Amino acid sequence: MQTCVLNFLYRSCAVLLIASTLPLANAKEEPRPRAREAGLVVGVFKTGTLNSITDVSGVRVGHYTKIEGDDIRTGVTAIIPAPGNLYTNPVPAWIHTANGYGKMIGETQVREFGEIETPILLTCTLCVWSAANALKEWMYEQPGMGEHTLNPVVGETNDSRVNNMWADPIGKKEVYAALAAAATGLVAEGSVGAGTGTQAFSWKGGIGSSSRVLPAQLGGYTVGVLVQTNYGGALNMNGAPIGRELGDYSFRKFLEPVADSDKEDGSIMMVVATDAPLSALNLERVAKRAIMGLARTGSFASNGSGDYVVAFSTNPAVRKPRTSDKPVAVKVLVNESMSPLFAATAEATEEAIYNAIFKATTVSSSRGELTAIPIDDLMTVLKKYRALNWGELVGKD
Amino acid sequence: MQTCVLNFLYRSCAVLLIASTLPLANAKEEPRPRAREAGLVVGVFKTGTLNSITDVSGVRVGHYTKIEGDDIRTGVTAIIPAPGNLYTNPVPAWIHTANGYGKMIGETQVREFGEIETPILLTCTLCVWSAANALKEWMYEQPGMGEHTLNPVVGETNDSRVNNMWADPIGKKEVYAALAAAATGLVAEGSVGAGTGTQAFSWKGGIGSSSRVLPAQLGGYTVGVLVQTNYGGALNMNGAPIGRELGDYSFRKFLEPVADSDKEDGSIMMVVATDAPLSALNLERVAKRAIMGLARTGSFASNGSGDYVVAFSTNPAVRKPRTSDKPVAVKVLVNESMSPLFAATAEATEEAIYNAIFKATTVSSSRGELTAIPIDDLMTVLKKYRALNWGELVGKD
Amino acid sequence: MQTCVLNFLYRSCAVLLIASTLPLANAKEEPRPRAREAGLVVGVFKTGTLNSITDVSGVRVGHYTKIEGDDIRTGVTAIIPAPGNLYTNPVPAWIHTANGYGKMIGETQVREFGEIETPILLTCTLCVWSAANALKEWMYEQPGMGEHTLNPVVGETNDSRVNNMWADPIGKKEVYAALAAAATGLVAEGSVGAGTGTQAFSWKGGIGSSSRVLPAQLGGYTVGVLVQTNYGGALNMNGAPIGRELGDYSFRKFLEPVADSDKEDGSIMMVVATDAPLSALNLERVAKRAIMGLARTGSFASNGSGDYVVAFSTNPAVRKPRTSDKPVAVKVLVNESMSPLFAATAEATEEAIYNAIFKATTVSSSRGELTAIPIDDLMTVLKKYRALNWGELVGKD
Amino acid sequence: MQTCVLNFLYRSCAVLLIASTLPLANAKEEPRPRAREAGLVVGVFKTGTLNSITDVSGVRVGHYTKIEGDDIRTGVTAIIPAPGNLYTNPVPAWIHTANGYGKMIGETQVREFGEIETPILLTCTLCVWSAANALKEWMYEQPGMGEHTLNPVVGETNDSRVNNMWADPIGKKEVYAALAAAATGLVAEGSVGAGTGTQAFSWKGGIGSSSRVLPAQLGGYTVGVLVQTNYGGALNMNGAPIGRELGDYSFRKFLEPVADSDKEDGSIMMVVATDAPLSALNLERVAKRAIMGLARTGSFASNGSGDYVVAFSTNPAVRKPRTSDKPVAVKVLVNESMSPLFAATAEATEEAIYNAIFKATTVSSSRGELTAIPIDDLMTVLKKYRALNWGELVGKD
Repeated sequence: MQTCVLNFLYRSCAVLLIASTLPLANAKEEPRPRAREAGLVVGVFKTGTLNSITDVSGVRVGHYTKIEGDDIRTGVTAIIPAPGNLYTNPVPAWIHTANGYGKMIGETQVREFGEIETPILLTCTLCVWSAANALKEWMYEQPGMGEHTLNPVVGETNDSRVNNMWADPIGKKEVYAALAAAATGLVAEGSVGAGTGTQAFSWKGGIGSSSRVLPAQLGGYTVGVLVQTNYGGALNMNGAPIGRELGDYSFRKFLEPVADSDKEDGSIMMVVATDAPLSALNLERVAKRAIMGLARTGSFASNGSGDYVVAFSTNPAVRKPRTSDKPVAVKVLVNESMSPLFAATAEATEEAIYNAIFKATTVSSSRGELTAIPIDDLMTVLKKYRALNWGELVGKD
Repeated sequence: MQTCVLNFLYRSCAVLLIASTLPLANAKEEPRPRAREAGLVVGVFKTGTLNSITDVSGVRVGHYTKIEGDDIRTGVTAIIPAPGNLYTNPVPAWIHTANGYGKMIGETQVREFGEIETPILLTCTLCVWSAANALKEWMYEQPGMGEHTLNPVVGETNDSRVNNMWADPIGKKEVYAALAAAATGLVAEGSVGAGTGTQAFSWKGGIGSSSRVLPAQLGGYTVGVLVQTNYGGALNMNGAPIGRELGDYSFRKFLEPVADSDKEDGSIMMVVATDAPLSALNLERVAKRAIMGLARTGSFASNGSGDYVVAFSTNPAVRKPRTSDKPVAVKVLVNESMSPLFAATAEATEEAIYNAIFKATTVSSSRGELTAIPIDDLMTVLKKYRALNWGELVGKD
Repeated sequence: MQTCVLNFLYRSCAVLLIASTLPLANAKEEPRPRAREAGLVVGVFKTGTLNSITDVSGVRVGHYTKIEGDDIRTGVTAIIPAPGNLYTNPVPAWIHTANGYGKMIGETQVREFGEIETPILLTCTLCVWSAANALKEWMYEQPGMGEHTLNPVVGETNDSRVNNMWADPIGKKEVYAALAAAATGLVAEGSVGAGTGTQAFSWKGGIGSSSRVLPAQLGGYTVGVLVQTNYGGALNMNGAPIGRELGDYSFRKFLEPVADSDKEDGSIMMVVATDAPLSALNLERVAKRAIMGLARTGSFASNGSGDYVVAFSTNPAVRKPRTSDKPVAVKVLVNESMSPLFAATAEATEEAIYNAIFKATTVSSSRGELTAIPIDDLMTVLKKYRALNWGELVGKD
Repeated sequence: MQTCVLNFLYRSCAVLLIASTLPLANAKEEPRPRAREAGLVVGVFKTGTLNSITDVSGVRVGHYTKIEGDDIRTGVTAIIPAPGNLYTNPVPAWIHTANGYGKMIGETQVREFGEIETPILLTCTLCVWSAANALKEWMYEQPGMGEHTLNPVVGETNDSRVNNMWADPIGKKEVYAALAAAATGLVAEGSVGAGTGTQAFSWKGGIGSSSRVLPAQLGGYTVGVLVQTNYGGALNMNGAPIGRELGDYSFRKFLEPVADSDKEDGSIMMVVATDAPLSALNLERVAKRAIMGLARTGSFASNGSGDYVVAFSTNPAVRKPRTSDKPVAVKVLVNESMSPLFAATAEATEEAIYNAIFKATTVSSSRGELTAIPIDDLMTVLKKYRALNWGELVGKD
C-alpha cells in the first residue's frame, strides 16, 4: 500500500515514504518554515490565530495525498465551507474566472444562484470529472437529501510534470478520504493533497493558506485564503526578485543566453472564505481581489492558466434556506464597508502563495522532478532586498 | 421500439425492449409528423434541405438511446462540429448561459478561448461527469493527440421523471456509441438520445432540430439548431395557446380551480451551428438569439432551468490552428452583417423546439410516464388559431 | 412657444399642435385603445389596478414632450424609483444589456454596486449626455446631497426618423420638466415623452406600460414595466402575424418582390419595477426575462439595437443606507421563489410593448413621418388569428 | 508653469498661472525624472524608443490642461488610436471593468461590437458628459461622417481634492484643444491634461505612460500604456514599501496611533495600445492584465474606485470596414501566442503608474493641495530596498 493521508496519518505515511523505491518527498529534511516564520510579513493587517483559512469560523479542510507506483503523485483537497447540509442551506458564494483555461466544474450555477451547495474540491486537471462524481455520491449520503440534482464544485491544476493524470487516479476512495479528513485547525501546506504534484514558477508548489483579521473598527472580520499553486511568471516575494536572482523566470530564454527557463503556463486555484456577512455580489468583488494578491507574486495569468477564485461567506446571518415562501431576514454589509475586506483578501492570497512555496517539498516520479525552492538561497535574496520583517525595518536605515 | 434504434447496437437494444416488463415507447402508433410537415411554418426564412442542424456543412450528430430495466430511460447525443482534430484545430465557439442552473461542463474555457476543442455531448443531469470522462478518453484516441489537457463540453437536462439518473447510466460504452453513430443526414428527433427521457411543458419532449438558409443577397449562410427540451411555461406554437387550450401551463393551479399543473422548472440545451464565418464574439451574439426563439414558445426561463446555448462556426475560413508563431489569416463577417443571422437563429430554435414536441413519443418507466402531446388535439388548436400555413393564409380571410 | 407637456397640459399642447404649420400628432382622432381595452389579453397573470409601472408602490413617472419647429420631435421620460434621497438610500437595481449598441449611461456602476442612486431618464440617442448633465444638477439640488460624485442612469433610442437629435434638443429645462411631472397614476403612453419620435417595427412606436400582480400564494408581488420602443423584426401580437399580414417585416425585400420593407435596426429601453424584495443578483435575473417578453413580439435584437433593461426593487426591506458601520438587516426572497416573477416580467414587457404600439399616434416632421398602425387593420388581423380574449376563447370552437 | 504648457494655448495658460493668487505647480523646481531615469527598471522586457504609449505606431495623444481661478485644476487627455475615420473603420477594442464605480462612457457598445469608433478621452468625473458631447461634435466634423449615431468613449477620475468639477469646467473648447494637440512623440506626464488634479496614494498623481517591445522571436510587438492615476492603497515600487516608509497608506489610522492616513478610495483609468493583431476577445484578455500591473503597485481596487482598462489594436490587419457585404480578410494571433503580450501589459502598466508619480508636480487650489512625492525621500527608500537597477544588482551582493 502506498497511499497516505498526510494530515492525520503522518507516521504511517512517513513509513510509506521510506518504503518507496523512488525518492519521494524527502521525509528527513528539517521542517521548512512558513513565510511568516521566516520573517516574510505581507501587508498591513494582522493574521488570524492559525494564519490559515480555518481561522474563518466553521471552515474545514481535508487532504488526501496519493503517492503510488512510479507516476502517481497527486491528491485531493476538500474545503467544507460551513456546518450542516449545504444543499438545503447553501452559503452565499461566487466563482470568479480570471483566466478561464482549465476544467472548473460547477461555475455557472454558482454564478446564477450566488450560492454553493456542496463542499469544494481541488484536484488534478483530468481528475475533476471523477472527483465530481464522487462528491455527488458523498452528498447523497448526507442526512436530509432527497432526489435532487446537485452542483459539485471542483477545481484543478495540472500536475502532469510528476503525475500521470491520464490514469484517472482520483475516485470515490480518494474524495471520501479527503472529505472525511476535513477538520478545523492548521491546514497542512506544501506537497500535500491537491498540491502533491503541482509547481510554482520553476519550483515545487502546492497548497498554501493564510488569513487576515480586520481591526475592530473596520468590523473585525476574518478573511482566509487557501491556494493550489501551479503557475509561472517571475517570482517576487514582497518585491524581492526571487526569479531573476535565482535565474528562472518566464521568457528568460528569449532575453538572456540561456538554454531554458520557466515554463510560463500553469494555473492557480484560490479559495477565499470570510465570516463577513456578504451578498453574492460582494463576494464576487472580494474574489476579484485575490487576483491582485496573485499579481503581486509575479504572475501575469498566462494564456494557458486556469486562474479561478471561489469565495464564500460563512456568516450565519447571510445563510438562507433553499426554499422559503416568505422573504428571509439576512444582515449584510453595505458596499461602502468593503474596502478593508478587499485589501485583506489581496494580502492573504499573496501570503498563502508564499506559504505554498516555502512549505513545498521536492516531489519526483518517473515523469520528472519538481524541486523545492532552496530555503537558503531564498532567504539570501529576501535579505538582500530587505523583504523580511518590514515592520521592524520601516523607519530604519 | 423506435426510440431505441438510432445507433449501431440496434439488436441488443431491441432485446432489452422486449425483455422489459413495462410498456415503453408505443411502437405501434403512426409516425408523428415534424412541425412543418403538419403545416407549422415558423418565421420568414427558408429551411435547409433537411431542416436539420446537419444542413450546416460538416456537422455530424449521433444518438445513443438507453432503455434498460425498470427505470433507465436516457441517452447521449453527440454533436461533432467539424471534421479533423478539434484539439489541434479548434472551431470558433461560444457558450451562452441564459439561466445557469444545471451542470454544464466546459463553459469557462470556451468563453476564455472562444473555441471548442472537442465534440459536444448532451445527456442526463447527473451523467455529465461520467460522460465528460468518456469524451476525454475518446479524444485521446484520436490521431495527433499528445499529453495535453482537454476541455470536454457536456450539457444536460434532468430526465428523472422517467429515468434513474442516480444510477450513473451513462459511461464509456454509451458515449462512444453516440460518437460512433455521428453522421450527416437527417437527425432523429423526439424520444431519442439525450431526449429519451426529457419533458417539454407537461408533455414528452426530446431532441428537435431545424435550420434556416439566408437569401443569397444576405450571404446565403446556413444556421442549424439542435435542442434537448425539458422546460416548462405556457406552450405556444406560432402564438396558438396550446398550453391553455389543453389545460396545462405553469402556475395554473394558482389561477384556476385545478388540482395540478405544469411543473414550471426544467431546462433546455440549444446547440447552434453555422457556416457563416464568425468570430467568437459574434457567435456569442448569435447564441443569445436562440433564447429569443425559446421565449416565443412560452418559456420564461424558470429559476431551476439550465438554459444554455453552444454556438459554433464550421466555416474553414475562421478555423485556426491551435499554435502558430505568425498571425493567421481568417475571413470574418463584420458586425453590420449579423442581423439576418440573428433572425434566422431565433426562427430555427423555435422550430427545433416544435419538432422536439411533435416527434416525441410517450416514454414510461417505474418512475412515471411522460405522455406525447396528442397530435390530434394539437392540430385542433393550431387550426383554431390559424397557426398553420401562415404563408398561404396571409392576405386571406 | 412650441413645447408642451402632453400629460398634464393637454389643452395648451393641443392648441400648440393646431398652431403648428406641420401636421403633427393628429389631435382630432378618437383616443386609441390600450391593448387590453381592445381585447388583447397577454399571458396568465392579472394586471395591477392601472396596468402600469406605477402599480408598483412608490414609482413615479413623468414625461416631457418636445415638439418644436420643423424637426424637433422628441422628449424625456423620467422614472423615479422610490421616494426619498436615492443617493443616500439607493435602491437595489441592475442593468442588463441584451444587445449593447446604444449609449446607455451609468451601466457599469449599477452593475458594480447593484444599486441605482438617481432617477432613470429615457430620451433620444444623442441627447443622453446633456440629459445626464441635467440629471446631475437636479440631484445636487436635492436635500442631503454633499460634494459627491453621482451616477446618472440615462437610456435612449434613436428617433432621428422624425427628430433632429443632432440639434441637442434636450437640456436642463426638458429634464427638470420631466422630473417635475413625475407622478403616480396612469402613465401616458404612445407618442409622448421619450417616445415622441420613436418607431416600432414599421409603425409609430413610443412609450408603453403594463403590470402584473402575482397570486397571493405566490407572494402577491407586483411587477411593472415601462418601455420605449424603437425596434424592428416581424411584429406578432399574441402570435398573430401582424407584420406579415400588413406587409411589413424585416428582410421582406429579400424574400418577396417588394420595393421596401421594415428597417430591422432599432432599440428598446425596458424599465422593470417590482415591490418584491429582491437582491441585485435576482434583479439581474428578472431583467433578463424582459428580453423574453420582447422576443415574443417578433424582435430578434438586431445588430444595431440597444436593448437594455433597468430593473429595480422598491421594497423598503431591501433598501439599505449608503453607509453603515454595522451589517444592515434586509429581507429577501430566495432563488426558489423567483419563477413567478420571471413569468410576470415577460408578460408585462410583452403587453407594455403592445400598449406602446396601440397608443402611438402619427408623428411627422420635415425629416419624415411615422404613421400610427391603423387600429382597424390591426383588429382585423387580431380577430383573424383569434388573438383577442383568449380567456373567453379557450375551450370553445 | 510646466503643468500648463502642453497645448496650443500655452501663452494664455501662462497668463492664468501668473494671474493666480494661489501657489500652483511649483515652476522653479528641477525637472523630475521618469521612473527609469531614476533607475527604477520594471520587469524583464525592453521598452520602446520613447517608453510611451506612442511607441505603438499610429497612436496620438494630446493634453489640455485647465488651471483657472481659485479652484479649476483639471484637464482633458485625448488618445486617438489610429489614423483615418474611426467611425467608418473602427479598431478592435475592449473596455474591461475591474471595479465599476465611476462614470465610464461608452462601455456597453465597445463590448458588444468589440470596436472603438471614436478617440478616447480622459477627464474629471463630473466632466464626462460634457466631454462626450464635445467629442460627438468633433466626430461629426470629420470627413465622411453622415447622420449616424456615435459612441464616444470617455473615462474619468475624481480630481475634486483640488478641482471644482461641479463647475462643469470641460466643454467643447477644452476637448477640441486636447484633440488638436494629439500627436505622436513623447507623452507629457504628471500634472497635465486629465492628470492635472489627480492623486496617487497620498501624493500628487497624474498621467504616466510606458511601453514594452517583445523580443523578435515572440513576435516583436509593442504594447503601450497610458494611465490617469487617482487611487490609493499602500504604495510599493518594485516591492519597496514606499507607503509604509513614508508613513502613508490605507487604513493606517486603524493600525498605528496616527491621526490620519491615505484615503483609500479613488480610481485609475488605463489605456492599453498594441500593434499586435488581436481580436476583441484577446484584447479583453490583454485589458485584464493591466490590473495585474496595477496590483503590483499596492492597489487593492477599493470600493469607490473606477478602475477601467480600454485596450485596442492599431494593427491594420485587424481593422475592418464598418460595412461589408462579404467576409473581410484579417490576420490575428492565436491564443497560444498571447502570454508574452500579457506579461508586457502588466509590466508597462506598472511602470506607467510609477512615471505618473515620479513626474507629478504639486498642485494646489482653494480646495486643497496635492503634494508631489519628494524625490529624495522616494530615492532613499528605493535604494534601501535595492529596488533600483535590478538588472545590475542581480547576482551581486
